[in-house]
Amino acid sequence: MTPTYALRVNYEDTDFSGFVYHANYLKFCERARSDYLRVKGVDQKALFAEGVAFVVRRMDCNFLAPARFEDELTVATDFREMAGARFELFQTISRGADTLFTAAVTVVLIDGRGRPKRISPELAAALTHP
Amino acid sequence: MTPTYALRVNYEDTDFSGFVYHANYLKFCERARSDYLRVKGVDQKALFAEGVAFVVRRMDCNFLAPARFEDELTVATDFREMAGARFELFQTISRGADTLFTAAVTVVLIDGRGRPKRISPELAAALTHP
Amino acid sequence: MTPTYALRVNYEDTDFSGFVYHANYLKFCERARSDYLRVKGVDQKALFAEGVAFVVRRMDCNFLAPARFEDELTVATDFREMAGARFELFQTISRGADTLFTAAVTVVLIDGRGRPKRISPELAAALTHP
Amino acid sequence: MTPTYALRVNYEDTDFSGFVYHANYLKFCERARSDYLRVKGVDQKALFAEGVAFVVRRMDCNFLAPARFEDELTVATDFREMAGARFELFQTISRGADTLFTAAVTVVLIDGRGRPKRISPELAAALTHP
Repeated sequence: MTPTYALRVNYEDTDFSGFVYHANYLKFCERARSDYLRVKGVDQKALFAEGVAFVVRRMDCNFLAPARFEDELTVATDFREMAGARFELFQTISRGADTLFTAAVTVVLIDGRGRPKRISPELAAALTHP
Repeated sequence: MTPTYALRVNYEDTDFSGFVYHANYLKFCERARSDYLRVKGVDQKALFAEGVAFVVRRMDCNFLAPARFEDELTVATDFREMAGARFELFQTISRGADTLFTAAVTVVLIDGRGRPKRISPELAAALTHP
Repeated sequence: MTPTYALRVNYEDTDFSGFVYHANYLKFCERARSDYLRVKGVDQKALFAEGVAFVVRRMDCNFLAPARFEDELTVATDFREMAGARFELFQTISRGADTLFTAAVTVVLIDGRGRPKRISPELAAALTHP
Repeated sequence: MTPTYALRVNYEDTDFSGFVYHANYLKFCERARSDYLRVKGVDQKALFAEGVAFVVRRMDCNFLAPARFEDELTVATDFREMAGARFELFQTISRGADTLFTAAVTVVLIDGRGRPKRISPELAAALTHP
């Protein structure tokens, strides 16, 4: 099952066009990824204290339809694949049956010097645990 | 010549990792696009009052290296092509000789109902004026 | 009973100091005020469509202790008084028993020209309904 | 002479009301304070590396008139007084002759445990250097 994260559009998310400011869809996806990690038992603060962190390396974003103030949105996060230091997700932001935004996301684990670091078997198991 | 836009990283742009929060690179690109339009004589507020607006339809983002507080960055905006209601840009954020972020950006002109609207010859001329 | 609004600190809320960026506490208060209005049956989008809106006129903010990534916070919103076009709130952001932020907030109802507009008896009744 | 900081309102600063989102005036003030410190020769990154930092303790904000997309604003930062670990500023955001926002700001120097730390004579001299 695809994990989903729910949110409501706040004043701060919109711009003068009346819709959600485009970069804020990336914030919504990031909230959903943090929630995904938390649910899988991955503690980002503990990783950070150990000197490693997940960072976004690539994000191919499609802005399909706009969201408005007070819209109730859901972010679905599909795990696609993992290899070495990286894994791939596909995220979809919807309002009811309408897809508003999709993104193919490449996340990389890096060490304190910013170099890719192989994802340990334990971390890999947590990330892919159903 | 490629137009460039200069900015300094502020407190608000960073997150607890110590680097710029990933979605904020899209804000930097948007500031550079607004500046690009202004320099070309395209008045976004006037367009908006006429019921049309430029919106981002797709943005393929590569996060190559992180920026830090007080870094001085430049955003280069290369016009690539235009057809019908859309045009393509390639944007690059650099710190000195280092490329930190690139994005292929598809922008679409929409009407008040959100439907694509052909870019007029006058607007096209302004956008591509060297 | 004082209405409360719960939130979790996201990546985007922090800055490179490791704590929540100070201006973001105002966002948290605004989310809580929007929630307060929604719970009381006040539809901000409908008001906006009628050409009136609630705006913050004054906010006296005390930053008492910092919040961190993933902290679970609550925002309490106390109604204090109302007169003419304005009402006063006192908002408190807490993490468990610790108070992190307080603000005395003056909100004004304005019309489409930005002038104060007397709060109608119906709206006043909704705002103060227990 | 009061130092001033200039900025232009970007898309990201506005909300669906058509005006600048209220919390963003605090961001503008913070950019102006960082600029003030930089001009006075105070290196916030170096202070942070030494385990001390300036934080906002109180900010009494008056929202007097709204700013719009593409407005050119100036932020004036007046030094008021200093004692022990804290200093007081008065900041004013203007558009031409119009005052849009004012704030009385109390800033405190804290150590790595968040406790107030007396401002050294050298730092005090830099802060008050005309």
